[in-house]
Amino acid sequence: MLMNNFTLIRRDNLTRARLGLLDTPHGSVETPFFMPVGTLATVKALTPEEILEAGGRVILANAYHLHLRPGVELIRKMGGLHRFMHWDRTILTDSGGFQLYSLADFRKISEEGVHFRSHLDGSMHFITPEMAVEIQEDLGADIMMCLDECLGYPATRKEAEESMRLTLRWARRCRRAKKTLDRALFGIVQGGMHADLRSQSAEETREIGFDGYAVGGVCVGEPKSSMMEILDQTLQELPVDRPRYVMGVGAPEDLVECVALGADMFDCVLPTRGARNGLLLTRKGRLSIKNARYASDESPVDESCQCYTCKHYSRAYLRHLYQSKEILAMRLNTVHNLFYILELMQGIRESIREGRYAEFRREFYMHRRQESEESTMQAISS
Amino acid sequence: MLMNNFTLIRRDNLTRARLGLLDTPHGSVETPFFMPVGTLATVKALTPEEILEAGGRVILANAYHLHLRPGVELIRKMGGLHRFMHWDRTILTDSGGFQLYSLADFRKISEEGVHFRSHLDGSMHFITPEMAVEIQEDLGADIMMCLDECLGYPATRKEAEESMRLTLRWARRCRRAKKTLDRALFGIVQGGMHADLRSQSAEETREIGFDGYAVGGVCVGEPKSSMMEILDQTLQELPVDRPRYVMGVGAPEDLVECVALGADMFDCVLPTRGARNGLLLTRKGRLSIKNARYASDESPVDESCQCYTCKHYSRAYLRHLYQSKEILAMRLNTVHNLFYILELMQGIRESIREGRYAEFRREFYMHRRQESEESTMQAISS
Repeated sequence: MLMNNFTLIRRDNLTRARLGLLDTPHGSVETPFFMPVGTLATVKALTPEEILEAGGRVILANAYHLHLRPGVELIRKMGGLHRFMHWDRTILTDSGGFQLYSLADFRKISEEGVHFRSHLDGSMHFITPEMAVEIQEDLGADIMMCLDECLGYPATRKEAEESMRLTLRWARRCRRAKKTLDRALFGIVQGGMHADLRSQSAEETREIGFDGYAVGGVCVGEPKSSMMEILDQTLQELPVDRPRYVMGVGAPEDLVECVALGADMFDCVLPTRGARNGLLLTRKGRLSIKNARYASDESPVDESCQCYTCKHYSRAYLRHLYQSKEILAMRLNTVHNLFYILELMQGIRESIREGRYAEFRREFYMHRRQESEESTMQAISS
Repeated sequence: MLMNNFTLIRRDNLTRARLGLLDTPHGSVETPFFMPVGTLATVKALTPEEILEAGGRVILANAYHLHLRPGVELIRKMGGLHRFMHWDRTILTDSGGFQLYSLADFRKISEEGVHFRSHLDGSMHFITPEMAVEIQEDLGADIMMCLDECLGYPATRKEAEESMRLTLRWARRCRRAKKTLDRALFGIVQGGMHADLRSQSAEETREIGFDGYAVGGVCVGEPKSSMMEILDQTLQELPVDRPRYVMGVGAPEDLVECVALGADMFDCVLPTRGARNGLLLTRKGRLSIKNARYASDESPVDESCQCYTCKHYSRAYLRHLYQSKEILAMRLNTVHNLFYILELMQGIRESIREGRYAEFRREFYMHRRQESEESTMQAISS
C-alpha cells in the first residue's frame, strides 16, 4: 500500500548526507531540497515563474489557512490547488498541526480532534485527523502531512509523552483515512526534547508505515543545541529508504548541518519573511538592508550572486525601496533570498553527487563572516 | 535654443487626434502615449522589464518625492535616475508643483519660491524655480517640467489670475535656469477654469518658448465637463509642432477624448493605484475584484486580454489574493491594468496611423457596459 516514491542515488562517505530522487504526480525532484512557503496559495511576492527560475520545484501550502480562506471546496471546484495558483510542479501541504499551535486564538484538543477559533474572524471550527487528510486530498496535494499535535517548548515529560501518544493515534487514523493511491502521506515524529520519547515516536510511526517521515516540534523556541541533538538522533531512527523531512528549518547553516545528519526535505519562512523585513542572505552571512551604511552602496547584495536582483540593482536602491515601503523591495529581496537558498541546496546536491559534501560544508563556513548583523529570529518574528 | 524633438506623422481627418514621434536621449517614442507613474523611482509593484513588456516606454518620476527621499545628490552619485532604478528608456520628471499642492503639510508661496514642510518627517524645505530645474537635471530626466503653482478647485478669478501670472514668471526663470541642451523642458499652462486666463497663459507660455507644453491644474476636483471644455480650448491654443501633455489624466474614456482634442502625452495613477485597490480595467468597463460575485468565477479579468494575469489566473484567484492582502494581488492587478491602458494607447496610435480614429473611438464605447461597478475616484482615493 505504500508508494515506491523514493530512490537513493548516493550516500556520502564522511557524513550521513544523501542524494535521492522523490517522485510525485507533478514531477520528480532530487533531494535534499528546500520548499518555499506558499501559505495562502502564493509564495509571498513572487510568481510561479520566478520560483521556478530561482530553482524551486516544490512549494509548501497550508491546509489550515486554505481551509479558512478561500475554503477547500472552492479550490476543489476551481480544479485543485495547482490550477488555482498556476503551479504545475509538486505541492506539499501542511496539515495544520503547527498552525493550530501557533495561530489559532483558541484551541481545545480532544481524542476526536481539535476545536479551534479562526485567527481571521473568530469563527469556531472542528478538525479531525480524517478531515485533515480529506482536506489535503481535496486540495490535490502531492504530499500530505498527518495531523499532529505540535508541542510548545518547554514542556514537561508527561505533557510531551501524552502529546506524542495522541499524535501516534491520530497518525493511525490519518493512514486509514487516506483514499488516494498516487499521493504521498507523511507521518510526523514528535516527543519534545526527550530522546526516549522521540525514539518511541519514531519506532511506532515507522510501524504504522508512511511514504515519508517528518520530524516536527523543532524550531519552537528550544536552544539550537537541543534541536540539533534531537535531529541527530531522530533522523538516524527513520527508515533509510524513505524521504526524511525536517519541518520549519531553513537558516543556511541549519540546512547544511541537517543535510549532514541525513535530512532530505526542508521548509521555512526565513528566506521569504526575512526578505520582506529587509534581511538578506549572502555567502558571507546576513545583512540588513535598512542599515544606513548601505545608503550609497553601489554594490549588489552579493557580488557572486547571479539572481535578477543582484544583476540589476545596488544595495543603495534596495535600501531606498525598503525605506520607502515599496512593494518592489519585497519582490527583489525575496527573489534574492530564495535564489540564494535554492542555489545553496543545488550546491549541496552536486557536492553529494561528487562525493565531496564534507568539503562543501567546510567551504560554506569559510565564506561566512564571524558575525551576522542581525539575528534570524529578529527578522522573521517582526 | 529649443529642441527639434517632435515630428508630426499624421493628423486625423475627423478629429484633432495626431500621431507623432518624440525624440529623447533615451529613445524615440510614438505619441500619443501614456506614462506609468513611478513616483519614488519605481512603478509600484512592477519591475522595469514588466513595464516594457506591457508596452511602457516612458515613465514619470517625481522630483518632489525623490528630492525628499532618497535625495537628489545620492541619485546623482549613483549615476542618475535611469541607472539607479534600472530603466534605460525615457523618464519625465514632474517638478513638484502638484505635489506641493496635494502633499506638503504646509506651504507658503512667495515670489522667490515655496517654503514647505515635508510630508515625511515635517522638516522645512525651500524650493525655487531654478532649483526645480537643477534637481531635475541632476536626476538626469529626459523631459523636465517647470515649477508651477497648482491651483485648487474652486478658486476665485483673482486667485486664478494671480496664480497663473506667478506660474508664468516662474516659467521664465525655469527657462533661463536650464543648462542641459539635450534634455527637454516643458512649460505648464494654468488659469483654473477661466477660459480667458487659460488663453493668456497659453499665449504667454508659448512666447517664452518650450520644448513641449503641458496643461496643468486639471483633475483637481472640477466637474468632468469643465475639465473637457478647458482642455478642448487650451489644446487648440498650443503650438501644433510641439508635444502637448495633459497632466494627471488617465481614465480610459478621458484618454480617448483627450486624444480626439489633440493631446499627445498623459500620466495618471489610476491604472496602478486602482489596481492596488482592486479596481480592474476591462474593455467592457471597470470591475472591483473584491466583489463577492467573483469568488468562484473561473474566467480571467478580461477574456480578450493577452496580459500575463489574464493568461494564467482566474478572477476567483485574484479575489482570493486581494482578500488575503497578498503582494501578488497588487502585482497581477497592476500588470493587467497597465497592459490594458498601454494596449489602448497602441490601438489609438494604430487607428490614427490608418486614418480611422473616429471609428476606433466609436468601437471603444460600444464595448463598454452602461455602468461601471465602482467610480474611478473611489478607487484611486482610498
